[in-house]
Amino acid sequence: MGSKRMMRLGMSMRGLGYHPAAWRHPDVPANGTVSFQHYLRNAQTAERGLFDMIFFADGIGIREHDAPRGALARSGYEIIEMEPLTLLPALAARTSRIGLVATASTTYNEPYHIARKFATLDLISEGRAGWNVVTSWSEAEARNFNREHHLDYATRYERAAEFVEVVTGLWDSWEEGAFLYDKAAGRFYDESRAHVLNHRGKHFQVRGPLNVGEMPQGRPVLFQAGASEQGREMAAASADVIYAAHDTIEAARAYYADVKRRLPTYGRDRDDLKIMPALRPTVGRTAAEARAKFEELQALLDPMVGLQRLYGTFGDLTGHDLDGPVPLDRLGPQELKSFSDRWVRLVREKNLTIRQLYEHQAGAGGFHLVGTAAEIVDVMEAWMEAEACDGFNITPSILPGGCDDFVALITPELQRRGLFRTAYEGRTLRENLGLKPHVNRYSRQAVPEPVSA
Amino acid sequence: MGSKRMMRLGMSMRGLGYHPAAWRHPDVPANGTVSFQHYLRNAQTAERGLFDMIFFADGIGIREHDAPRGALARSGYEIIEMEPLTLLPALAARTSRIGLVATASTTYNEPYHIARKFATLDLISEGRAGWNVVTSWSEAEARNFNREHHLDYATRYERAAEFVEVVTGLWDSWEEGAFLYDKAAGRFYDESRAHVLNHRGKHFQVRGPLNVGEMPQGRPVLFQAGASEQGREMAAASADVIYAAHDTIEAARAYYADVKRRLPTYGRDRDDLKIMPALRPTVGRTAAEARAKFEELQALLDPMVGLQRLYGTFGDLTGHDLDGPVPLDRLGPQELKSFSDRWVRLVREKNLTIRQLYEHQAGAGGFHLVGTAAEIVDVMEAWMEAEACDGFNITPSILPGGCDDFVALITPELQRRGLFRTAYEGRTLRENLGLKPHVNRYSRQAVPEPVSA
Repeated sequence: MGSKRMMRLGMSMRGLGYHPAAWRHPDVPANGTVSFQHYLRNAQTAERGLFDMIFFADGIGIREHDAPRGALARSGYEIIEMEPLTLLPALAARTSRIGLVATASTTYNEPYHIARKFATLDLISEGRAGWNVVTSWSEAEARNFNREHHLDYATRYERAAEFVEVVTGLWDSWEEGAFLYDKAAGRFYDESRAHVLNHRGKHFQVRGPLNVGEMPQGRPVLFQAGASEQGREMAAASADVIYAAHDTIEAARAYYADVKRRLPTYGRDRDDLKIMPALRPTVGRTAAEARAKFEELQALLDPMVGLQRLYGTFGDLTGHDLDGPVPLDRLGPQELKSFSDRWVRLVREKNLTIRQLYEHQAGAGGFHLVGTAAEIVDVMEAWMEAEACDGFNITPSILPGGCDDFVALITPELQRRGLFRTAYEGRTLRENLGLKPHVNRYSRQAVPEPVSA
Repeated sequence: MGSKRMMRLGMSMRGLGYHPAAWRHPDVPANGTVSFQHYLRNAQTAERGLFDMIFFADGIGIREHDAPRGALARSGYEIIEMEPLTLLPALAARTSRIGLVATASTTYNEPYHIARKFATLDLISEGRAGWNVVTSWSEAEARNFNREHHLDYATRYERAAEFVEVVTGLWDSWEEGAFLYDKAAGRFYDESRAHVLNHRGKHFQVRGPLNVGEMPQGRPVLFQAGASEQGREMAAASADVIYAAHDTIEAARAYYADVKRRLPTYGRDRDDLKIMPALRPTVGRTAAEARAKFEELQALLDPMVGLQRLYGTFGDLTGHDLDGPVPLDRLGPQELKSFSDRWVRLVREKNLTIRQLYEHQAGAGGFHLVGTAAEIVDVMEAWMEAEACDGFNITPSILPGGCDDFVALITPELQRRGLFRTAYEGRTLRENLGLKPHVNRYSRQAVPEPVSA
């Protein structure tokens, strides 16, 4: 393989961690999602661990309709949280090198606001801002924004593509060198380097220019999920990083090859788009310690909260015997389709009970590894070598514990094997991710790029 | 008069200061509006000076149509700036006691976002958030948000009133004590204290509840301008602070009496709404030094930028003799009405030239005092004694100079006369402003308030 590819790492810091029982864990501050000190501590730990970035998923509402009655009040998961684009500037002011990525929806925002806010975050953080572009999906969110139902898939994606076009257009309002600051001559900016976007599309009419300029990264780094066919194509066209989700190396390799293959169509190189699947590690100093940590958390899972996990597919199962079989026969063809093949197979093969299924979904679902640092890094290294990814987004079960453990145990093992940095290479997120500098579209026009051989 | 009323003070920190030539001043960092260090320095100075709050005005666009050709590029005023609701959390993380007030428009936002962002700011700052409610007015802003023209006055205000109703409703989603955090019993929140707003109005349909809770202030402090009849009534109904604009003590007294008189209708006391006019002081150790500071800045005023000040009323005057008379005859009855009576009187009485008029508007307009600290505090004290205000919003000509000078010279003089605090009284902005604690609307229903005698 030659010299090893360096791994990119993000720490997903939503709430108290990704396990729905996290808030009940003795080491977790149950009110952490409304405590700035909680977020700050985790961000500083991740920076000490040289993570490329911290990453915040987001939802713009409480999914009260997606749960059996009474379940939400027993669940500390995604109930109250800080708004990421308000939280990240505060974390920017108390960190210095780690990237700061916030989710913002293209369905319930206006592009001028989003362009401005991320541009401001890039300035405050001196070049560490990233935008995770999502289209939102839940009815709960729709009902907080003047709608009865969420937009259909096609309209959401059409709007998203135009939204990103407007935002990136606004970000190019000011060419490099536009601001002269010439006090003697009284020239603040050079009019020939200021550009009015004048976008007139199907979903948006936005004139510009943006009233923020001189972003340290040229523009913030763009993140997408890119799972569907349409999503893959959109990511290949414009994303810098894909936040992927795969739980087998085979699926990850196939996805990786497919997306990377699409890049040349858009004049982009293989390394211009990083693919980082989610990974939830539970690490211990011994395998037994790791297993005990996992089981301690699983034991805190409230059956009501477990049933909430199944609600979207099965509806309310509160009357059912939790230790009886999963009622697959309740599903129509439509529900079966939405319930992933993998789960159906698992339920059938292993004859899972309802309790076993929700325990699996809550605790062990997705790409989840339990073991020592060496065992976990073995798998991470294998994924890198197999070209299944460019790195990982760590989704800890609990915070701060999951972040602390990673930095204390896994980071040193990655470094020992030469898979991960021992110091930040650059000042900006773009530099640390090994992405090319952004070139303003108008500079490109002025100075034609050399044709590659 | 008995014991003196304590003065409230806000520092308006927009950009490089309120003088349009500020960026050309030798002590002003011309790129300050895109430098976090610039804002941080001023915020920390204002906190050292025990200001109740820093205050950020805002615009969501560059007013390119409100200027003669070429003028904007010579003006560093309101061109590029940080977005206040992104900037304030960063300042919150590096200050500890000063209030943080951001402007956000009800015309170009959605109430759920605004409720969430200010609630998050209140959490991050531990109770120092304030929202300045504005409706926006410029065509430039409309064109960045899918419109050709701004909304008419009546629709803007109708939308604003409903917007505030929704936001304050969402802020009450969680009653005091709603969050139990009972790990043993598995109870995260008490359902009887969680409230769905389910707002269905003319402009908005918003279900709720808000996915942020436990704000240290109960809810952020509300600011309004409240100039018009409709604005005064809206402020009397719901604002905590009015950011007023008066340049004579008579006008300020009349306004103050009028607004305070409206409060009982809404079950509110006289002290429940603070009225703070804008004040621009240019202070020196001697009167001559103050005058020299003022004139130094006036001399930096570019004629093009000066004419921009008159553009909204007179259109493009670039062909005219700057030292000739102001062409009042160019104004139709409509323009004359919008051009304030005070200016018309001034032009007629003093036979002002075009240059004299724009110099007056740029540098000396509004409530502007030039003198020693004792001279300036004499006027401030007289306004307080005459019940013309509850304090002032300082709008410095330049930053950091205007803020530095105030804290070095005027604050000690105010303190010496017992007009201003010598230490913060409370932890929150609400406490420092002397406002009553916020009582959640649902708690009010549960525990009836005693009828006042």
